Amino acid sequence: MRQLILVCIVLNYATLLSGAATPSSTEAHAAIEQVLKTQQEAWNRHDLQAFMAGYWNSPDLTFFAGGHVASGWQGALERYRKTYQGEGKEMGKLDFYDLRIEPLGEDSAFVRGAWHLTLSDGKTPHGLFTLIFHRFPDGWKIIHDHTSVAE
Amino acid sequence: MRQLILVCIVLNYATLLSGAATPSSTEAHAAIEQVLKTQQEAWNRHDLQAFMAGYWNSPDLTFFAGGHVASGWQGALERYRKTYQGEGKEMGKLDFYDLRIEPLGEDSAFVRGAWHLTLSDGKTPHGLFTLIFHRFPDGWKIIHDHTSVAE
Repeated sequence: MRQLILVCIVLNYATLLSGAATPSSTEAHAAIEQVLKTQQEAWNRHDLQAFMAGYWNSPDLTFFAGGHVASGWQGALERYRKTYQGEGKEMGKLDFYDLRIEPLGEDSAFVRGAWHLTLSDGKTPHGLFTLIFHRFPDGWKIIHDHTSVAE
Repeated sequence: MRQLILVCIVLNYATLLSGAATPSSTEAHAAIEQVLKTQQEAWNRHDLQAFMAGYWNSPDLTFFAGGHVASGWQGALERYRKTYQGEGKEMGKLDFYDLRIEPLGEDSAFVRGAWHLTLSDGKTPHGLFTLIFHRFPDGWKIIHDHTSVAE
């Protein structure tokens, strides 16, 4: 009897632990940092498709920029193409900096950061971004991006 | 013996349930909607202090706008004062719309939305915002605001 009660307590404790277990925020932090590093590297070899792999490939992705909403992964890709690959445009060299990655619950996080582009004509557009990340079975992806340009 | 095993299963199940229990997302949704409604009403009677009650009163609050970071509750208040209460400025009439409130875990949520101001000279500055909310003992508060103006 005592043994059974002990087993019962241990089982409950194990259930509690498994319920409370979340991927450590350190792991989430490192995984998200890696997504952003991969994006920056992809951008700097002008590989927009690889850059876009950091985004949730869904019509529900949202991208806020310049007061406009680009809806869905395809909408975000088209905005990037138009802004950085259109006639007389270029992708330039991208740097992300001042990153603050903050997990929110088990499968979500938000990231505050700054971006800086160096273009061949010497211009350096730059600004801030807020990203919402969600952890999917195939990794952390951006589900919402709000990017703004310094005035 | 069978009874004990049954008790054991029930206890485990109860532990699991209590581990999974979160304040319902409906409640979070309603509470956050109310914060934003209160903010809009405060703004429209030009009560900036009451408007600011929707924000986390902490030096760790961040406010991104126009490529600049206002740090802390005080920094956000000062930015609002400068932008809307300075010489020749006005608060106007504020509308929030297209709100999408999405809980992330038990104590966090993010909000996508649009804002529209009507000023006495007929101008209508407008744009988008992304808010990160956190649930504190005294209610849901904005811990990060990224606001941008339509170009």
